[in-house]
Order: sequence, then C-alpha cells, then structure tokens
Amino acid sequence: MSRRRITIKDVATRSGVHASTVSRVLNPETRGMVSEALAQKVLAIAEGLGYRRNPLASGLRTRRSYMVGVLIPDLSNPVFPPIVRGIERTLSANGFIAILADCANNEQTEQAMVENLQSRQIDGLILATAHRKDPVIEACLASGMPLVLVNRSVARADVSAVVNDDELGIRLALEHLTGLGHTRIGYVGGPQSTSTGYDRYRAFLKVARRIGIAVTPEIIVNAEAFSEPAGKQAFLRILESGKELSAVVAANDLLALGGYDALAARGQRCPDDLSITGFNDMPFIDRCQPPLTTVHIPHDGLGVQAALLLLERIADPDARARRVRLKPSLALRGSTRRLDATAAALKPRPARPAARART
Amino acid sequence: MSRRRITIKDVATRSGVHASTVSRVLNPETRGMVSEALAQKVLAIAEGLGYRRNPLASGLRTRRSYMVGVLIPDLSNPVFPPIVRGIERTLSANGFIAILADCANNEQTEQAMVENLQSRQIDGLILATAHRKDPVIEACLASGMPLVLVNRSVARADVSAVVNDDELGIRLALEHLTGLGHTRIGYVGGPQSTSTGYDRYRAFLKVARRIGIAVTPEIIVNAEAFSEPAGKQAFLRILESGKELSAVVAANDLLALGGYDALAARGQRCPDDLSITGFNDMPFIDRCQPPLTTVHIPHDGLGVQAALLLLERIADPDARARRVRLKPSLALRGSTRRLDATAAALKPRPARPAARART
Repeated sequence: MSRRRITIKDVATRSGVHASTVSRVLNPETRGMVSEALAQKVLAIAEGLGYRRNPLASGLRTRRSYMVGVLIPDLSNPVFPPIVRGIERTLSANGFIAILADCANNEQTEQAMVENLQSRQIDGLILATAHRKDPVIEACLASGMPLVLVNRSVARADVSAVVNDDELGIRLALEHLTGLGHTRIGYVGGPQSTSTGYDRYRAFLKVARRIGIAVTPEIIVNAEAFSEPAGKQAFLRILESGKELSAVVAANDLLALGGYDALAARGQRCPDDLSITGFNDMPFIDRCQPPLTTVHIPHDGLGVQAALLLLERIADPDARARRVRLKPSLALRGSTRRLDATAAALKPRPARPAARART
Repeated sequence: MSRRRITIKDVATRSGVHASTVSRVLNPETRGMVSEALAQKVLAIAEGLGYRRNPLASGLRTRRSYMVGVLIPDLSNPVFPPIVRGIERTLSANGFIAILADCANNEQTEQAMVENLQSRQIDGLILATAHRKDPVIEACLASGMPLVLVNRSVARADVSAVVNDDELGIRLALEHLTGLGHTRIGYVGGPQSTSTGYDRYRAFLKVARRIGIAVTPEIIVNAEAFSEPAGKQAFLRILESGKELSAVVAANDLLALGGYDALAARGQRCPDDLSITGFNDMPFIDRCQPPLTTVHIPHDGLGVQAALLLLERIADPDARARRVRLKPSLALRGSTRRLDATAAALKPRPARPAARART
C-alpha cells in the first residue's frame, strides 16, 4: 500500500543535476552555494515530486534529532496538561518536537522511559517528575544530556529548573487567612520526597512563625501523595486531633478537595466549619463546591520557560545551569470566610463528638 | 561535557570478536547464530561498557522507527489526557513510543504537525482531531501511512477508528429524563463539522422522535465549539426562545457547564429550573455544583483500543480497516431532578421576564 519514498536521487535525475547539488539546495544553510535560478528550479521539482526531507538520515549527519523528551509523573493530574502545552508550543515554534511519556508515578517506569528516550538520541530532556533525591536525574547529569526540571526540582545547583515561588505562594495564602481573622491555622502538606511538598512545608513553618501562628506538631500533617484520598486522610487526622482550627492551608488543590471530603464525612462544611486554601489553581477548580480559594501558579508559563531553558542548553551544553522562579498569585473564591470573632469565641467549632460518631 | 557514545566497535574490541558478531548478538532475532556462551559474554561486556542501541541507525536498517504520532485537538480539554494515557501505556508495553502534538484546534497547525511527524518516519499516526470532511486524513490515507482515528471519526469505511457509541449515550440520557417525568426536553449540540457533534445531534433527533418528544427547531441549538462560552450562548438561545423546557441534553460536559453559566446569568438554577445532562464524564465534573449527570465514556479504553488497532495496522498495513465502538454508561448525579407534574402544570417555569432583564 505504501508508495516508494522520493529520494534526493529522484530529484537529481529529474533536475538533470548531481545529487550533491540537490542536497545543497535543500539545506537552507548551503543553498547560497548554487545560483538562485537553479535553486528555485530544484526546489520546484522537489516539491512537484513530493520530496520530503528525512530527518532520521539528516539527524545521523548533524547528530541532532530535534526531538526532546518530556516526562510527566501523571498526565491525569490537571496541572500537567497546561505545562505540557506550554512546552510543546515553544518547542514546536523552534523546530523541535516533544516526545511525551507519562510514568504513572512509578520510579521504575520512569527510569526505563528515560533510557528509552536516550536511546532514541533525543537532544534534551524535560523532567516534571523530580524527587529531591533522584537517581534518574543523577544519571542524566552524568551522561551530559541537556536537562531541565519543571515544576519540581532538586537541591543541586548544577541542574536547570523552572519552578514556582512556593514560599511566596504559602505567604499569600497565610496572609489572606490572617486578614480574615484566622489565627488557628493548620497545614496539610504533600510528600516530603518532592521539592514542592518539602518547600511548601518549610515555607509554612517559616511564615507561620513569623506572623505569630502557634505551630505545633498536631496542626501539621504531610499527606503521602498529592491526591484526594491522601488529602482526606490528612485532613481527618487534623480534624480529629482535638486542636480547634478555623482554617487549613493545603499544599495542593487535590489535597484541598480531600479536605472537602473529610468535612463531608464528619457532617461539616467548608467554609462554614473550616476555611481551606489550595495550591495550583487547576482547571475547573473554580467550579467546585465551594469554589476553591487557591494559589494560582502560571503552569503554561512554567512550560514555556522550561522549553526555552532547554533550547538554550541544547545550543550551549556547557552553559551554567539556571533556576527560574515564577511568581504565583492568589485566586480568591468561596472556600475561605471571614472569621466572626465573637461567634468563634462563643462556640469553638471543630471535632464535634456527634459529628465524629457519624464518620 | 557529553561523553563519547559507546559503539558496537568498542564492544567488539573489548570482546575480541568481529563487530558483525557483536551486531548479531545484540539483535535478538539473530542471536541464535552465535553460541550461547559467546552471546552471554558479549552481552555482559556491552552492558559493562554502557553500550546503548541506536534506534535511529537501526531504524534506518529496519525501516521502522518504533515511533507513533498522536495528534490531539486540545490537551486542555480534560477528555483527552485519559485517552493519551491509554494510548501511551499500550504503545509503551509494545516497545513503541508516542510523539504527542497538540494542534490547539487549528487546522493549519494540524496539517503542519502531521507533515512534521511524517518526515520523522513515524510508523503510524493516531488522530483525535478528525473533522467529518478532513483533508489531513485524506492525505494520510493517500500516503499509505497506518492511521487510526480516536474519539472522532469520518464517514469513510476505509479508515480504522475507535469511537464511543453516541446513539446509545443519547438514548441513556433521554430515557433517564423521561423516566423522571420530563417531556419538554431541548438539545444543545456541538459543532456539526465533527462526528461527535453530528452523530449526537442525529441520535437526538432519532431517539427523541421515537420516544414521542416534540422536536421543533427552537428546542435545538448546535453550539459553534465544544466549550463553556459556546455552551452558554446556545443555552441562552434556547432559554430565551419562549419554549418552556424542563430539561436539556447537552452534547458534552463543557457545553453543560456553559448551561450552568446561562442559568446563573438569568438568576436561575440547575436542576430547580432546568435539568441538564452532559456527555463525557470528564475528570472532576462530579465535584461541580451541581455534580453533573452525564454520559460516561471510557476514555482510557478508547486510547487503549486505538493503540492496539494501530499496532495491528503497522504489523499488517493491508489489513481491512476496522471500527471499534465502545459502550457508554450513565453517571447519575445532581443536575437532573424528578419533575413534579402538578407543580410544573401550575407554574410553568422558564424565561422569567424579571430574570431576563437582569442578564
């Protein structure tokens, strides 16, 4: 069924010139070596025959594949599609294409995928999968592969990364809550093996202490995953700790949704019984009930910057590693409410025995 | 910074055998031509040196790249990530990788991307971008490229496709509504240039007539895009038509969310003033307010089946085209309510002049 591929030789035969002349014409960088008239003639014949350049073969000559690997921990987490779109659009505008791989949050799969991508001689790699201690990243750096981390990072200074300013994000959430009169504020964090989980947790400790919030172990629970079920479990632990909190800062939107589930399981409601803030501002979170007040991260921008940084590194693999930190903002919605000081003092809310019995 | 690549020659020198012997050992299909003991020795040395097969070069020999192009109209539409995950997982399990491209709903971009993918000698292509009349698909078929359509399709019988059974989906939605006592049911469709828009519209006409619903032009509006703003406009047209409807079937979830917006703009609510059903069951739609009753499509399954069908076609490009139709189910949630016959008769609801003035 498939037709024979048109080669440079076919174009040469039809044009009555040598194949090397056709090759010069077809490469924009060497086209100036032949006359303009001849170049136009050869180009017209190549187009008429349906000649298509073979980057597989020219990739072998130039040692460049114009392919970039992009590894995502979980494409069904709504924060990643906008990052991928930003990466893909930027690479495409620069003549590169993205090979996307989703490792389903599995480190062994990730390792195998990186090896597969490297064996295809990709020109570089963008990883959204980083763990704070990450043998995959160590191996990539050791191999000299141009590498950029996006969204998550590692502590090493010799790897380029584009991340959100997580400390600013936590500060925005905390200042918003204290501005509404909250002082008893808990924290539901993410896995400490990721930089996002770790940095947001450290930021909460730092900012909370600075603005005078009593930080005790009971009001902080780091969930085992950035997921709704893990968030629900973490919120339940805080809600059942006996500490009377009026608000909780969550380290991402899925954890915050788990908080909604934990409240529902106890017959309580957000924000009436507990104000909750999220982190990410993932698509459609503004349509949840209640719409989530959350730290907005410019995910598309993270993707764009990561692609630009990688293109820089591909052009100059020995350039110094750079770290780009984008600024988040706060999206104000319905999951946080002003604390009525009198009411709060009269009837401290949480952990009602009756409600608890229902769970 | 980058280290020199280990070649077959390096392995041969270290093993004390000829390069062609190493080549035979490294290819599982020719390994039987050398002794088991020698093969094990060469493999151990290759691994010790960190030899990595170069599929770019072996792809030139076998004329296979083990790469598949996957073209998505819009990765930020939440139905596509699960399809991509299903495709990617299935391809990966079979030694192929996916090159993902997002054409941002732009036909010219799509054309350019397909040409780019073809020039990289992909072994096949999965398109989620089909329009009912689609020059890109015509060109792919003409080139003999193994091709599978997913989610959307074309009317031609000679192209393989994996789609949802849209007529069954519309029937499930309509029977659910009539079971709740609704008889005045409208329809907000999608763009008629896509098979999903067209097939669901035809299915509504067919099923509605069969179950005795009065179908008049005023109660049907096909939106210009599968998006929330287009859905809002379409719902407003129906709500302002003067026809007193108690329910609307929407051709996808984003259109249904646009219906929520249209009601809100008129000071009305779902399902109190209008029951709405969606189509897709996209992630997190169960958390919207109200949670959307919708036709659940097994998107991951669409992706898996599309990948399997493409692998079949790559193995046998002359095999007959196949069409796989997956069965949807109905996800019952809070956007539909039982119609109180008496109340409905007493105070026919829609298009309140007061509310309308507010918009």
